[in-house]
Amino acid sequence: MAGCHPGHAGGLKSIPRHNMAFISVILAHPRHGSFNDAIAATVVHTLEAQGHEVGFHDLYQENFDPVLLTPELEREAFLHPDLEQHCREIAQAKGIVIVHPNWWGQPPAILKGWIDRVLRPEVAYRFNEGDGGEGVPVGLLKAKAALVFNTSNTPPERELAVFGDPLETLWKNCIFGLCGVPLVYRKNFAVVVTSTDSQRQAWLEEVKEMVGLFCPT
Amino acid sequence: MAGCHPGHAGGLKSIPRHNMAFISVILAHPRHGSFNDAIAATVVHTLEAQGHEVGFHDLYQENFDPVLLTPELEREAFLHPDLEQHCREIAQAKGIVIVHPNWWGQPPAILKGWIDRVLRPEVAYRFNEGDGGEGVPVGLLKAKAALVFNTSNTPPERELAVFGDPLETLWKNCIFGLCGVPLVYRKNFAVVVTSTDSQRQAWLEEVKEMVGLFCPT
Repeated sequence: MAGCHPGHAGGLKSIPRHNMAFISVILAHPRHGSFNDAIAATVVHTLEAQGHEVGFHDLYQENFDPVLLTPELEREAFLHPDLEQHCREIAQAKGIVIVHPNWWGQPPAILKGWIDRVLRPEVAYRFNEGDGGEGVPVGLLKAKAALVFNTSNTPPERELAVFGDPLETLWKNCIFGLCGVPLVYRKNFAVVVTSTDSQRQAWLEEVKEMVGLFCPT
Repeated sequence: MAGCHPGHAGGLKSIPRHNMAFISVILAHPRHGSFNDAIAATVVHTLEAQGHEVGFHDLYQENFDPVLLTPELEREAFLHPDLEQHCREIAQAKGIVIVHPNWWGQPPAILKGWIDRVLRPEVAYRFNEGDGGEGVPVGLLKAKAALVFNTSNTPPERELAVFGDPLETLWKNCIFGLCGVPLVYRKNFAVVVTSTDSQRQAWLEEVKEMVGLFCPT
């Protein structure tokens, strides 16, 4: 798939070998040992086995601060080095994988804050010259594709009928579409709370398969 | 409107007079003096002029911590007294008003965290006995109505056509619908960044009018 075009993640760690790409993997779940953890680990291992360079961030583990304060509203804001590193990585990633539970039809706050703070103007999008901020922004992310893995405890029929499955438009249109990522594949695993071990194992196999299709060597 | 039925907000500050109600007002915007600030101030003044008791929270001002950590996933979790106060207020409110900008089709992270942490099981919803967490929860909020005021810099036609206006289903179905608040009125003011002073003044008049309809004395 287009997300893993041969390329290099210039300036990240080293110049990767041909056919490798730098892939950002972002995880947001508070519980160590959660099924989200298992999904993210499967993603990382599969990508690494394919020879890709992976920039993995467990937002809870690294205690990511999700609150965007006023100074960061400025285009030329000073950014904390940790935040700057997040911005550099997402700007250079050739593919992006996001893993999080569905909380109220949205990501957990820690991931919402990653969106608010990392997907900044001049990193993820830009307004054309002369635009006062009300126009249509131009997406700047280099990633050609993104994969979103969600978990929930709501049966899919109810999710769609009652809630309208807002995570679909949030990730595809509001976030990655706006930032210029043309392909977004999303998979929701439900119902997790009542799932058996063998069901979860089958879901992890599905993750492997999707990552394989997403980033073939 | 039903949100302000004569009643009392037992246990909050005092027993309110007849025809008064306790109304929760929640604001999330980082910039002091923002148009969101002006909306929230208008809401609070209008409610107070009507004799209501207002529980106002400026989440940025009070440095609300939006990150839900593992211990709070437990039903019987210890809650910080500040969080407990938030829970008590939202559980008792007869009406709720939310004010925030549209950031990526969602609330800012600080408000997303308020949703994650305050709208807890046994405060905002409950699963029926014998339900393993995969069923349909029962809403517990007493509020009969909620008002949501949003601001954005996207023209309404584009918001609907490109992004699907996810805040509509998020507040109406995913959040307040699930928690048992039957009526949700939402108004989005756009485009703020290019609006004139007189346009903003007219919008604040609209806020007054909506709050008046929402909570008539």
